[in-house]
Amino acid sequence: MATIGIDLGGTNIAAGVVDAQGKILAQGYRRTLPERPYEEVIADMAGAAEDAVKKSGLTMGDITSIGVGVPGYFDKKTGVVAFCPNLGWHDVPLCGEMRRYIDLPLYGDNDASVAGFAEAVAGVSQGVKTSVFLTLGTGLGSGIIIDGKIWSGAHGAAGELGHLMYRQGGVLCTCGARGCLERYTSATGLIRIGQEAAARHPESSLHRFDKDPLSAKNIIDAAQMGDAAALEAFDEYTTHLANGIVSIISFLDPELIVLGGGVSRAGEYLLEPVRRKVQAGKFFKMLPTGEIVLAALGNDAGIIGAAMLHRA
Amino acid sequence: MATIGIDLGGTNIAAGVVDAQGKILAQGYRRTLPERPYEEVIADMAGAAEDAVKKSGLTMGDITSIGVGVPGYFDKKTGVVAFCPNLGWHDVPLCGEMRRYIDLPLYGDNDASVAGFAEAVAGVSQGVKTSVFLTLGTGLGSGIIIDGKIWSGAHGAAGELGHLMYRQGGVLCTCGARGCLERYTSATGLIRIGQEAAARHPESSLHRFDKDPLSAKNIIDAAQMGDAAALEAFDEYTTHLANGIVSIISFLDPELIVLGGGVSRAGEYLLEPVRRKVQAGKFFKMLPTGEIVLAALGNDAGIIGAAMLHRA
Repeated sequence: MATIGIDLGGTNIAAGVVDAQGKILAQGYRRTLPERPYEEVIADMAGAAEDAVKKSGLTMGDITSIGVGVPGYFDKKTGVVAFCPNLGWHDVPLCGEMRRYIDLPLYGDNDASVAGFAEAVAGVSQGVKTSVFLTLGTGLGSGIIIDGKIWSGAHGAAGELGHLMYRQGGVLCTCGARGCLERYTSATGLIRIGQEAAARHPESSLHRFDKDPLSAKNIIDAAQMGDAAALEAFDEYTTHLANGIVSIISFLDPELIVLGGGVSRAGEYLLEPVRRKVQAGKFFKMLPTGEIVLAALGNDAGIIGAAMLHRA
Repeated sequence: MATIGIDLGGTNIAAGVVDAQGKILAQGYRRTLPERPYEEVIADMAGAAEDAVKKSGLTMGDITSIGVGVPGYFDKKTGVVAFCPNLGWHDVPLCGEMRRYIDLPLYGDNDASVAGFAEAVAGVSQGVKTSVFLTLGTGLGSGIIIDGKIWSGAHGAAGELGHLMYRQGGVLCTCGARGCLERYTSATGLIRIGQEAAARHPESSLHRFDKDPLSAKNIIDAAQMGDAAALEAFDEYTTHLANGIVSIISFLDPELIVLGGGVSRAGEYLLEPVRRKVQAGKFFKMLPTGEIVLAALGNDAGIIGAAMLHRA
């Protein structure tokens, strides 16, 4: 038995044929080119899936379902993508449109939930009943796994941890509110904090990036080289991230907290201060806390989790 | 079949015999007098329970379990109250001590979780699978119900929504952190906000309470009478509470959000602005949201929920 998983991103479409253990057997790719009509994008999603099936040596008859991770909100009842800000999609009938090419049961979910589920099925949180996955990327994506399943809430609105109010009255968020956790703990947040720190340090090496766009990696690299502004910025960032994790513990107390996305590539350099600050900041000091670990599947999580959505 | 529920408060011990439907058959009371040795307090808890059984017309042989709601942290594995700040308790062997008087299976949990569970078993959230209960009292107590059970998390640390970080760097909390949600949404928070508003309004009727302690009820009453300072304070308070509820929705998206505790006695006067501000502030504007309702059981929730803990 095998299933298809499709990771629909703002730049690329990645499809894969995945076996029951969560192993990717073959992959197919297309450009997303989101400015096109959605019908063309979905035709290319089907094309990427067909490529992957062909490469895997299987036929469509061997495939039992198709799953899609979308960078937005997928309505499971109607099979419609209600919205995807990065694609400019609004009420796109993904399920109906896909059936023109591949007539299989289609499952969809938010991409961060899908990645969190992939880690729970075949990654670092395998066998763990309750985990929270955070992607430290352009935004703060999150996936909540309760009893081994994606927790979507009573109306599908759960798992938007990037929009926990963290600093009421603070930095304006893309959602319209002020002080959302995402503004302080995403890669975008780290860049803003880095720019503010550089402004306080005229000697900082971060000024090399005054004309080029500054990246989260630039700041982390400069911090590891001892740049004072970058060190200040990274210290502030890890405080915010640890505070966010403390809130997650105070709310749900999961067995495991999994960090993925661009900033997580800093590895131990990120984990050490975050673990230390969570320990110092958590409410029940005497209770053990779910371990904070790095995601294991990297970019494959999007395909693997989507292919496994039939179990979510 | 009947069970005993004991609501252990800082001032009073209330015990009740409760039937399988969550109806209180008879009650017994003692003063807590928490400055005493814990052995004496627990002897009086047993005494209150024995009084209730006697009044109910049943005998101890008819009772199948005993449950206790504690204003602190009860370790379910060991039967020990790890700590109760209001009672000055630390590592009190509640289960072992109670067995000297009443030899029945003993269940315990945090009082806010117990009250939330009572509402889920016999109150406003009866039949609702997922709900979040908030007590707007001295602190912000909370109980999370998932699939009809109290959610305690992987290590027993869940459901401390009062300590979600809400205004990073803000008002100092009793827990040592700054900006906890409790500082802004508890009755204590409303009083602080009211005092600040009164300081901006020399004409405010709230200055009557400059010598007496100002209460949350004083502020709500003055707001309903049109006092400008009290109106400002209550408006700020309902904004904070709505923001907190928006975070709860972004995290868990429960079917129902239940408000109890002192401030909830304001009824519709509280609900109307909170519902309006949650609607305006929530992340997924187009999705329905769990209804925000008032708790139904009042002070009885502590006894009923404790008596039902064998099912939690």
